[in-house]
Amino acid sequence: MSQIKKVVIIGGGFGGVAAAKQLSDLPNVKVVLLDKRNHHLFQPLLYQVATAALSPSDIAYPLRSIFSKSSNIRVVMGNVCDIDRSAKEVILEDGGKFSYDYLIVAVGARHSYFGHPEWEEHAFGLKTLNDALRIREKILLSFEKAERAETPEEIAKYLTFVVVGGGPTGVEMAGAIAEITKKTMVEDFRKINPKVAKIILIDSGSRLLSQYPEVLSEHARRDLHQMGVRVTCGKTVTDIQADRIYFGDEMIMTANIVWAAGNEAAPLMTKLGVELTRSKQIKVRPDFSIPDDDHVFCIGDCVSLMDANGKTVPGIAPAAAQAGRYVAKLILKRLHGQPKSGERPFKYMDKGSMATIGRASAIAVIGPLKLTGLLAWLAWSLIHVWFLIDFRSRVAVMFSWMWSFFTHHRAARLIIYVRKRTANK
Amino acid sequence: MSQIKKVVIIGGGFGGVAAAKQLSDLPNVKVVLLDKRNHHLFQPLLYQVATAALSPSDIAYPLRSIFSKSSNIRVVMGNVCDIDRSAKEVILEDGGKFSYDYLIVAVGARHSYFGHPEWEEHAFGLKTLNDALRIREKILLSFEKAERAETPEEIAKYLTFVVVGGGPTGVEMAGAIAEITKKTMVEDFRKINPKVAKIILIDSGSRLLSQYPEVLSEHARRDLHQMGVRVTCGKTVTDIQADRIYFGDEMIMTANIVWAAGNEAAPLMTKLGVELTRSKQIKVRPDFSIPDDDHVFCIGDCVSLMDANGKTVPGIAPAAAQAGRYVAKLILKRLHGQPKSGERPFKYMDKGSMATIGRASAIAVIGPLKLTGLLAWLAWSLIHVWFLIDFRSRVAVMFSWMWSFFTHHRAARLIIYVRKRTANK
Repeated sequence: MSQIKKVVIIGGGFGGVAAAKQLSDLPNVKVVLLDKRNHHLFQPLLYQVATAALSPSDIAYPLRSIFSKSSNIRVVMGNVCDIDRSAKEVILEDGGKFSYDYLIVAVGARHSYFGHPEWEEHAFGLKTLNDALRIREKILLSFEKAERAETPEEIAKYLTFVVVGGGPTGVEMAGAIAEITKKTMVEDFRKINPKVAKIILIDSGSRLLSQYPEVLSEHARRDLHQMGVRVTCGKTVTDIQADRIYFGDEMIMTANIVWAAGNEAAPLMTKLGVELTRSKQIKVRPDFSIPDDDHVFCIGDCVSLMDANGKTVPGIAPAAAQAGRYVAKLILKRLHGQPKSGERPFKYMDKGSMATIGRASAIAVIGPLKLTGLLAWLAWSLIHVWFLIDFRSRVAVMFSWMWSFFTHHRAARLIIYVRKRTANK
Repeated sequence: MSQIKKVVIIGGGFGGVAAAKQLSDLPNVKVVLLDKRNHHLFQPLLYQVATAALSPSDIAYPLRSIFSKSSNIRVVMGNVCDIDRSAKEVILEDGGKFSYDYLIVAVGARHSYFGHPEWEEHAFGLKTLNDALRIREKILLSFEKAERAETPEEIAKYLTFVVVGGGPTGVEMAGAIAEITKKTMVEDFRKINPKVAKIILIDSGSRLLSQYPEVLSEHARRDLHQMGVRVTCGKTVTDIQADRIYFGDEMIMTANIVWAAGNEAAPLMTKLGVELTRSKQIKVRPDFSIPDDDHVFCIGDCVSLMDANGKTVPGIAPAAAQAGRYVAKLILKRLHGQPKSGERPFKYMDKGSMATIGRASAIAVIGPLKLTGLLAWLAWSLIHVWFLIDFRSRVAVMFSWMWSFFTHHRAARLIIYVRKRTANK
């Protein structure tokens, strides 16, 4: 390998960053890392920004800073609008073009509204910092509006919070909203009593956290129930409007709906000219390459893969990072002329998974271990702080958590954008 | 005083919060504190949010939390649109009305564009968290655009930063932008060299920081010069467009203009039916009451007053807080039936003033003392951290500062709202 080879990575999430790190400081490889945002986001803690416990800068880090010492990696902020596989080129919205020898697509997923895109306006999803700030503002404004409301019906509407989707994000959001209403806000209002707030978690399946063992689902349900959350399984949402939600045979008046249900791959996947699954993912080959192209790999939330163990690779951060490292190493081997026959297919190494429910309460599966309660929560806290990308965030987040733990306060209770949004209407 | 009396305070800045604190926990006084935002803002550090050193939650605190233990104080988030002095009522945009026995107006100031409101679109001011985030995003995006630009002219346009106004805010902004370009960003780009950025500070007066002794102005000019800032005094801005600014006999192409020049009182002052000065302030009587009404007081940035020492009360945070306490005590005395003849007029107690220029560089006047350099900077840091409103912010800010001091990094380098703004266009 004497000639310089170009690797383009689209997406600065866990998959893209892991791949780029693996390729950093290599003499004959030039990497372009493209992202429409300027930061890597620690998505597992995004719900804490949405519920005012952490600030955006606690869980986001400039991509440029991550790679400032890697001179062979160029970070470009831009929106990819097309991929030309015959010309081996990635095309940006602003007209910029980047040619590649190898392409890694790691663009992630976004929420799907099951064929009802019009629901999004009233039921925000939670994928970006902007999403999280919108939800934070909506929740905080609802308390303000309830305090100024004239009728009991209006107050009830503002103090009813509905979370759709009983996966980890839904469970974490419902638990955090319960803490806000029952603890954080209690002394701050004069007319309303935030404790009377209703929190409802809806899932269409038979139980919460369906990827986890049943005993942990039950534990989460019980903990949420104790925190005042009503958990409703087996009911499907049929309609969402500005002030109400219909599910099963019920209708509930609410100004606050959070959408944590279905996922689908980012729209860019349609540009690869490959068949997509129902959730817009690509079924990649065992080495993450797309069906008819050895130079294009897709990793992370936007693909579907059964690994060498015969298990579906889950759409979570550690799996994306492992895939990124795997693909980067594979590309290096091929650049060095190693035969494909010697390659091993990807095997996902399951180090465990966990979800938090509230203060001192979580569930975790680590190998054969099933943890609940305080112990699971401590494990969850340590692991999440540890994987935050830099030392500064680790300390800042630990401090924020300790502060909240002992005081029940939340530092980021700010409504910042109210006037601007009104002006734009 | 047996009957319950109502005090309405408009504005949760330094003046309004100080007045409300003075009136808290009193049996026969009910206070309504009105603000269009939900937080008190530590404005002296706002420029640090605009330059990505601090997060919004480091310098803002929910008004409700400040008064959560004061049961006689009700915080209301709402936009006051009118004041009916004959009915003794304050009227909100949403139709809400609050009647008062005494009214304290502490609505602050905003930027004035010297009769050119059209300049605002291209030259953001710095008064709110929203302003600060807009400036932060514009500065960070300019580096990204420069990295993607094709021509040297375009790169120069994005890497030229112009600050209009040589008061403390302008000096602090220019110094902080210089640090970003010369230190923070240096290793992060591949095509451009952020060090070549031009920073220009324009003031129409004969020197920077005109309220300070001349020797300190000169010191600030020299420090800024050493940091690479071009300081231009005695030149007036004549036009601002999207990509250029005209001042004196010069025209400079730039995509980044920050407005830190003239101030005028908030628009609500026109609703009091009292004559206003050229900068829309009210000339209050020595007890801060408005000329023909003993029940309405105006304090802070929105008024003009010569105090009992014959000195103009400055428009800074400590003066507003002193005025708030003074007026609150005065109202209490009157409620207790003490004769007006026994009242003392307001005297501003000058505890010193200071402005920071950059890392380890500031100027300060404390009584007869004039400080510069590291000593002034340490004094500035300690005092500003001390006056941050709660313990949590104090620790968080100190930590952020120590981190930046040693690493030159800035934690809050986030461009969050890009997509939304584009979508709204």
